Amino acid sequence: MADSLIERTVFIVSDSTGITAETFSHAVLSQFEEVRFEAIRLPFIDSADKADAAAQRIEQKARDDALPPLVFSTLVDPEIAGRIRNASCIFMDLFGAFVQHLEETLGMKSSRSVGRTHTNGLSKQYNKRIEAINFSLAHDDGQFVQGLQQADVILVGVSRCGKTPTSLYLAMQYAVRAANYPLIPEDFDRGALPHTLLPYRRKLFGLSIQPERLAEVRNERRPGSVYASLHQCRQEVADAERLMRMEGIPWLSTTTRSIEEISTKIMDEVGLDRLTY
Amino acid sequence: MADSLIERTVFIVSDSTGITAETFSHAVLSQFEEVRFEAIRLPFIDSADKADAAAQRIEQKARDDALPPLVFSTLVDPEIAGRIRNASCIFMDLFGAFVQHLEETLGMKSSRSVGRTHTNGLSKQYNKRIEAINFSLAHDDGQFVQGLQQADVILVGVSRCGKTPTSLYLAMQYAVRAANYPLIPEDFDRGALPHTLLPYRRKLFGLSIQPERLAEVRNERRPGSVYASLHQCRQEVADAERLMRMEGIPWLSTTTRSIEEISTKIMDEVGLDRLTY
Repeated sequence: MADSLIERTVFIVSDSTGITAETFSHAVLSQFEEVRFEAIRLPFIDSADKADAAAQRIEQKARDDALPPLVFSTLVDPEIAGRIRNASCIFMDLFGAFVQHLEETLGMKSSRSVGRTHTNGLSKQYNKRIEAINFSLAHDDGQFVQGLQQADVILVGVSRCGKTPTSLYLAMQYAVRAANYPLIPEDFDRGALPHTLLPYRRKLFGLSIQPERLAEVRNERRPGSVYASLHQCRQEVADAERLMRMEGIPWLSTTTRSIEEISTKIMDEVGLDRLTY
Repeated sequence: MADSLIERTVFIVSDSTGITAETFSHAVLSQFEEVRFEAIRLPFIDSADKADAAAQRIEQKARDDALPPLVFSTLVDPEIAGRIRNASCIFMDLFGAFVQHLEETLGMKSSRSVGRTHTNGLSKQYNKRIEAINFSLAHDDGQFVQGLQQADVILVGVSRCGKTPTSLYLAMQYAVRAANYPLIPEDFDRGALPHTLLPYRRKLFGLSIQPERLAEVRNERRPGSVYASLHQCRQEVADAERLMRMEGIPWLSTTTRSIEEISTKIMDEVGLDRLTY
């Protein structure tokens, strides 16, 4: 992207955090590969004054760029949105079209209350997420064995294959209590799962990784060690995959997958594919 | 929500993880407070066969509910999207309208490549996120003092005020290297910041919390302890806020804010409000 020719400014405007608009704009704009987008967040635009100040920033940028910026808006209040829409910009009203469609479909009016979508600071689901994060941190890397019966899923795999970030993502995004437990050479010598895990067999999900990539990752931590050697990584990965196959544990490779993709696959496999709003 | 009368099924359909569609649908649907939405994720729908199977699940649900489900789709391929659209459902094409608008504005065609939006498994930005998560974990709760000069931000505050989940969220969502460091009664007795933090003053951001809420949180960890007593919590919070004011550290209260809201405010305050796609 560094040497691409076309640049374009994007504003993310929201009466709340702007995370929805940012996720959405990123997904849509990544379909235009020849353009380098510089995104500026303008969160918490929840009053006419703030909207006017935001509109001024957008105007200024339009003059500086000599091109109207793209604006992705999740502003709910039409009055506030209108003040941004009138600036020199390509205004994308993310909610507008869909809210109207939904109002017709559901036969009711939306609340259109500013910031409503993210003010879940004290909701039950929110507290579940925070508890899940604490659970995943406490049960990282097999460090705390009590409480594994409360895990929704226990990730297993060799050291540095991606268990920790995946556990944390599952907890943070989906309130899933994800523990993780390392598979180590002693387990392979014994040819069996760690005893601690035996009661929780059905909760196990395996992660694996290409030995070459694993060696890279381990070398960042402990350069030049036996632990990071390609020979050691090859051995451990082969042993771990054999063990998981033998024990009938579902598993996947993390090598070319993002934590979002890995987490989604896990949720799918273990049947955690439903949510209630 | 438990006793609400209206229920409606929602399908999240994507050729990738569905996280964009899920975030978006959650934000839009939370504006209809009288309805309880049950969301079913159908990720990785990237072939005609999978689309047909998904369409069948939607058809079945339409019969079971005797109502067409809502479908939020981020399917990029029009052929695959068409197979879902033809099922009995209220089809919301999240990308369709905007992609066309953007194609006209930018004067170019989108790539419309399936799954493109999330196949960032090996990108630079993705690696930065994973490194930031590792950094935040290693610098949680002041446990590792070396490397603080590489932090983008260092969160400070009393024990259990929300520093850890916020640090992890900043790392995971924004690739921000967020360390955190506790303020403890010894610091308040001395009336000064921990020595370790003095070189990094300008990176400090404070979190505080209502003493009543703090006592609740601490009681979950150590029920009935002095540490969890309302008296102790009141004292620590008052001392911490006094210290932060005295030292000119920007801070906010986490009591009624979600980690998304807290993180967005921090990014805003410390000037980390830009992203490049």
